[in-house]
Amino acid sequence: MLTDQEGKKMFYPHVSVDCVLLGIDNEELCVLLVERKNAGTGKTEYKLPGSLIYEAEDLDVAAYRVLADTVGLKRVALKQFRAFGSPARTSNKEDVLWLERASNMEIDRIVTVAYLALCKVRKARPDKKYGAVQWTPVSKLPGLPFDHREIIGEAIKEIRKWTEVEPSIIFNYLPALFTALQLRRTYEIIYNKEFDVRNFHKKMNALPFIVPTDDLEKGVAHRSARYYRFDKVKYNQLRSKLNKT
Amino acid sequence: MLTDQEGKKMFYPHVSVDCVLLGIDNEELCVLLVERKNAGTGKTEYKLPGSLIYEAEDLDVAAYRVLADTVGLKRVALKQFRAFGSPARTSNKEDVLWLERASNMEIDRIVTVAYLALCKVRKARPDKKYGAVQWTPVSKLPGLPFDHREIIGEAIKEIRKWTEVEPSIIFNYLPALFTALQLRRTYEIIYNKEFDVRNFHKKMNALPFIVPTDDLEKGVAHRSARYYRFDKVKYNQLRSKLNKT
Repeated sequence: MLTDQEGKKMFYPHVSVDCVLLGIDNEELCVLLVERKNAGTGKTEYKLPGSLIYEAEDLDVAAYRVLADTVGLKRVALKQFRAFGSPARTSNKEDVLWLERASNMEIDRIVTVAYLALCKVRKARPDKKYGAVQWTPVSKLPGLPFDHREIIGEAIKEIRKWTEVEPSIIFNYLPALFTALQLRRTYEIIYNKEFDVRNFHKKMNALPFIVPTDDLEKGVAHRSARYYRFDKVKYNQLRSKLNKT
Repeated sequence: MLTDQEGKKMFYPHVSVDCVLLGIDNEELCVLLVERKNAGTGKTEYKLPGSLIYEAEDLDVAAYRVLADTVGLKRVALKQFRAFGSPARTSNKEDVLWLERASNMEIDRIVTVAYLALCKVRKARPDKKYGAVQWTPVSKLPGLPFDHREIIGEAIKEIRKWTEVEPSIIFNYLPALFTALQLRRTYEIIYNKEFDVRNFHKKMNALPFIVPTDDLEKGVAHRSARYYRFDKVKYNQLRSKLNKT
């Protein structure tokens, strides 16, 4: 235990970063979890990809290091979304013991800075060498250490806010050509609710940056649906008009 | 210097909170700065209200403590907006020495979690007992320690984003009855640019939650302007419609 000259216990919080990668897999909103090594329970345990920050490392750098080292991902546009610093984060002694073993440091308290990205699941299927990495439906999370479950919950609220403020996030997530159904399902999965089909189409058709193409779906049993594309130029024009008030 | 058993220097970052209070004073966007006591330079120096977090304190609690203790403010709706953790934050040795004197701790590196609020300047004029607290135009900032200047710059960008996503922020800031000029000037000051008067009126009139009243300005030399009010019910109706897609 670290003490000052008068033998009083010193208070040194640690700082970590945690990365929440959300994606859609099998029609479900999923989060990328990594194996929590040496948990000492004999079974595979999971956690968010994360790490204490290194001495000479800025927060963003630490977050990208975590993704590169724990899952081998490099091209993900991570964005900081919230710091979590409740003293209760380390109230579970087992979590603290695990982290002390893993980091070789004495841990009192950890403030974590959480990062978030919406990414395409198939582009982020990590190699087996990174251990038991898993895209897990957010509705079926296993037991998670610290406040990782709360962080994921807040991340989902945050990604919904992002899509309202900056709908282009959704279109970057979709293929270049998409059907109205694909667009609606993407929203429904992110918001975890059903939208009225007719209203959704009406709103969609009113948006100048969602442009119908001449292409139709091929090789489907039902009536072929039209493909749409996202027009980034029109989108940016509209945004810059809105922001000039 | 703290060392581990092998005599190696240990890395213990500190965690602080800093509060950016923005307001409009004399037609200028201003930030609340507090005196940086014992800076040792013989003149009054300023900084953002902030503090290292206490051992048993969550981040939000620390931010509210700072406002209560350093400027006596309690009813401000602070919101966390970003953690700043560059190792370069402590590259100025004088800042580090000052903080070491003030905190009686050895300081390597500090990660700060920044909070933000838009508040009414006249409601937040701290008592003199809190020292040389000042609402300072953001265009005329004095020398500030650490990265406080950068934090203020990011806070201004953030408040602009907030007003786009949640325009009610602006109306909470205005008096209950306001003129079109008052509304436009508030936007202009926050955005630091002029808006076209005619376009602004057109957009304003298209918003169902900005409601003209029968009241006119009194005792003015120029033609009396009409007062408007913000209709929160209509605003919330519109928002819930928008979010149902």
